[in-house]
Amino acid sequence: MFTLYYAAHTCALASHIALEDAGAPYSLQRIDFRKTEQQSADYLKINAKGRVPALVTPRGILTETPAILAFIAQSFPAAALAPLDDPFAFAELQAFNNYLCATLHVAHAHRMRGHRWASEASSFADMQRKVPESVGACFDLIERQMLRGPWVMGDTYTIADPYLLTVAQWLEGDGVDPKRIPRVIEHRARMAERPNVKKAIAEELAE
Amino acid sequence: MFTLYYAAHTCALASHIALEDAGAPYSLQRIDFRKTEQQSADYLKINAKGRVPALVTPRGILTETPAILAFIAQSFPAAALAPLDDPFAFAELQAFNNYLCATLHVAHAHRMRGHRWASEASSFADMQRKVPESVGACFDLIERQMLRGPWVMGDTYTIADPYLLTVAQWLEGDGVDPKRIPRVIEHRARMAERPNVKKAIAEELAE
Repeated sequence: MFTLYYAAHTCALASHIALEDAGAPYSLQRIDFRKTEQQSADYLKINAKGRVPALVTPRGILTETPAILAFIAQSFPAAALAPLDDPFAFAELQAFNNYLCATLHVAHAHRMRGHRWASEASSFADMQRKVPESVGACFDLIERQMLRGPWVMGDTYTIADPYLLTVAQWLEGDGVDPKRIPRVIEHRARMAERPNVKKAIAEELAE
Repeated sequence: MFTLYYAAHTCALASHIALEDAGAPYSLQRIDFRKTEQQSADYLKINAKGRVPALVTPRGILTETPAILAFIAQSFPAAALAPLDDPFAFAELQAFNNYLCATLHVAHAHRMRGHRWASEASSFADMQRKVPESVGACFDLIERQMLRGPWVMGDTYTIADPYLLTVAQWLEGDGVDPKRIPRVIEHRARMAERPNVKKAIAEELAE
């Protein structure tokens, strides 16, 4: 039995959907960012980084979306969520997820989390003005070169798909014109029709 | 046979050392950041992101340090560079590497790559002033909670060790006082004595 600590509208949604896809037994624990619960003493015992997601497992606690997604895929091989017996194909999948984590999500975070990397209001405003360009460049690269179609890695659905769906939910808020990335938008729409995705989003918004 | 595209003083060193540790057959291709070769048309065919490292393999090209490190460990299991048969332990290792990639390295990059996320000189200066604090906080967390000792993951050397050594080479330049993180510094010193590390660093500085 796993427990996923998440907050609504965050990258934790990717792990949430992957748990559904895997058929994993799990419960949810919501962290309310409006109350800054991610910085509470209780939550910092779960994840000292003060971030979501965190996945509590019988062996211990895991953090970092790409690591959690790979863990879910490896722990539930029957769900076939990653090419587990092919190190090269697995690495391509991990490279995609790492790009979302370390480049796209980081660019996105400069819209509302500029205090992580600067101190002055003028810098935050400058960062916010840059987000449409920096996040847009990430989606352009995904559109042109990385999203193989119909799924991220090609014919087979993997843990990269819920992760792309998750970050693609932020793009209008980041000022990226959806018209310039029709393949990303088509993937997002198709993902949104999947029952596991609908269930996960409904659960996150219901509480 | 692999080809590692790298630049001196970058995170590509981690993959370089791991290739040595694995006993992998590889050659090196230096990218000169002073000449902006990472943005050249030829290199963008190798890695459209314009970054290093990129690992050319017989199957195709891989990017993103955590993905490359896991690929090396999985491709050369005899080198025992990761707990390949234990999804939870493998995920803990990947979570460590992801933290270096998406949090520590990102904080570090605000010292000299602020143009990725902002446009104005005043913002770059503000970002630079924040780096000792933001990178320092990452190393504090590693010192207190993440570095198990003697190796990152405990008794067994893994692909997390060359990655930590690599980013720890930057900390004085980032304004982090080494005295506050004695365990990280001890790990770095012990890593620097390993023949594979000496060889990799000498190769990168020689060209």
